[in-house]
Amino acid sequence: MSRPLQPLSAETLAFLTPYLPPKDSSSATPHITLTYAQTLDSSLSLPGKQIALSSPQTKVLTHHLRLHHDTILVGVTTANVDDPGLNSRIEGATLEQQPRPIILDPRGRWNGHSGSRVIQTAKRGEGKAPWVVTGELQGRPTWVEALEQVGGRWLQVPLEEDSRWTWSGLKKAFGKEGVTSVMVEGGAAVIDGILREEGETGGIVDSLIVTVCPGFLGGEAVRVGPKFTGGRGLKTKDSAWGIVGNDAVLASRVGGEF
Amino acid sequence: MSRPLQPLSAETLAFLTPYLPPKDSSSATPHITLTYAQTLDSSLSLPGKQIALSSPQTKVLTHHLRLHHDTILVGVTTANVDDPGLNSRIEGATLEQQPRPIILDPRGRWNGHSGSRVIQTAKRGEGKAPWVVTGELQGRPTWVEALEQVGGRWLQVPLEEDSRWTWSGLKKAFGKEGVTSVMVEGGAAVIDGILREEGETGGIVDSLIVTVCPGFLGGEAVRVGPKFTGGRGLKTKDSAWGIVGNDAVLASRVGGEF
Ligand SMILES: NC(=O)c1ccc[n+]([C@@H]2O[C@H](COP(=O)([O-])OP(=O)(O)OC[C@H]3O[C@@H](n4cnc5c(N)ncnc54)[C@H](OP(=O)(O)O)[C@@H]3O)[C@@H](O)[C@H]2O)c1
Ligand SMILES: NC(=O)c1ccc[n+]([C@@H]2O[C@H](COP(=O)([O-])OP(=O)(O)OC[C@H]3O[C@@H](n4cnc5c(N)ncnc54)[C@H](OP(=O)(O)O)[C@@H]3O)[C@@H](O)[C@H]2O)c1
Repeated sequence: MSRPLQPLSAETLAFLTPYLPPKDSSSATPHITLTYAQTLDSSLSLPGKQIALSSPQTKVLTHHLRLHHDTILVGVTTANVDDPGLNSRIEGATLEQQPRPIILDPRGRWNGHSGSRVIQTAKRGEGKAPWVVTGELQGRPTWVEALEQVGGRWLQVPLEEDSRWTWSGLKKAFGKEGVTSVMVEGGAAVIDGILREEGETGGIVDSLIVTVCPGFLGGEAVRVGPKFTGGRGLKTKDSAWGIVGNDAVLASRVGGEF
Repeated sequence: MSRPLQPLSAETLAFLTPYLPPKDSSSATPHITLTYAQTLDSSLSLPGKQIALSSPQTKVLTHHLRLHHDTILVGVTTANVDDPGLNSRIEGATLEQQPRPIILDPRGRWNGHSGSRVIQTAKRGEGKAPWVVTGELQGRPTWVEALEQVGGRWLQVPLEEDSRWTWSGLKKAFGKEGVTSVMVEGGAAVIDGILREEGETGGIVDSLIVTVCPGFLGGEAVRVGPKFTGGRGLKTKDSAWGIVGNDAVLASRVGGEF
């Protein structure tokens, strides 16, 4: 079992705080924080290898962020490949403070079962029970029982064009479920999708927090690479950099073309 | 004409100094500094658009670095597309202090002429006359006369496998010409080539200085993305981050696999 993490340093806390979701909000849709750790060549991971990209201090930052979000979201590939716990391991974190894990799984291909870390973590009371979001499926996925046994939920949200959800659609669906904030952690397909929609229509990402780790993962890595139509690019604004351990952390808002 | 740039702040200078080439070295091959500015998605530029990625303060850093290198090198595509001056615009820089521009042009396809900025800059005494390195060519490139008129040189260096130079070969060739340091500025093909060889055999890059600018250029951009065989990745060591304007600057050595 992993050891609990110490709280964030006062300096890093001050740097991060302006970008946290508001404590009280009357908005009908949740605050979206897009956050991930990458190498210089914007890579997230090497297939089949467990590598620690970021410094221990940046890990604490991530776990601090998790405590300040209502939910934490990953794509189904991340859920399948990493079997993540998706809770906050900050020392003394209460179950109330824990974010609810959400897995985006349009076709019901999550490989979850009663032994999955996200289920086990909920069973131990160290994290909330997950929600798994699928499209409207014909059959009943294998994981539904294990999920519901720990109090988790299977949500069916109709898919849109190209058998995908738009993020504006997801924001509305989450808002209807009472979700006030979503910390989107990855992987690359989720990140590219959200950045693309932000670049094209705007209004999706409220905070962007990216950890840049020295080094390169190279051509076989899972890479972030949003595709905007018309070669426009996406600018950031109100941005601040913090140096945390060996890493540089960007905290920012987004908006504007290059 | 561009305005001269003020010197670097004392703080940024202290951060950068350990990574500058040694003043006196008995090495037979030059110190290689690999340096460029990228967005979060490791993009360098958008085709057909002139965009200022980095902050004014980071530009000063680049021009400071140029003053501390014997030569400054770009690939022929950068030379053709950007028509760069390749000198340092730090106020009070002497011609002696200026780096010598080197253009890597294996097939002699540089579009240089007497009006090119690198030629004009040399003519005005604001930069040294460039060297253009080609493979062993049949004919005489169109730019040779304009180049030699300002005291520049056409160097023929035999190409190796795949009609490419290895960087270990280039280092030896430059060493024989008395070059003590090379500041490699890009573009992406040059950077990927050097990183790949560094990842595979090591011994190429002495300093790595990368400016990370907030924002994304997206799928149509020119991107850095080194391809290492066997999915190994390339680590950095002795690294330090500096916050310069809106950007984070990594100064580092390289070495080790993930
Ligand atoms: N470094 C980090 O910070 C970090 C964080 C998280 C993950 N990771 C790494 O990222 C890798 C996985 O990334 P990945 O890009 O392969 O997969 P991913 O983003 O985790 O999951 C992608 C899948 O999620 C579903 N999905 C995502 N967006 C959707 C949308 N808008 N509408 C409908 N479905 C959507 C799709 O499922 P279907 O294929 O079923 O259609 C899609 O293929 C793992 O190696 C993991 O370790 C790294
Ligand atoms: N943001 C920054 O810091 C920065 C810096 C510099 C450039 N840039 C941008 O980068 C873009 C150009 O990048 P690019 O990747 O297209 O081209 P590039 O790297 O400038 O030039 C590539 C060409 O140089 C030659 N070359 C490079 N390495 C070689 C080797 N090892 N052996 C033999 N020949 C070699 C080849 O010429 P042949 O094709 O003739 O074989 C190759 O196609 C421009 O848009 C420029 O604005 C940005």
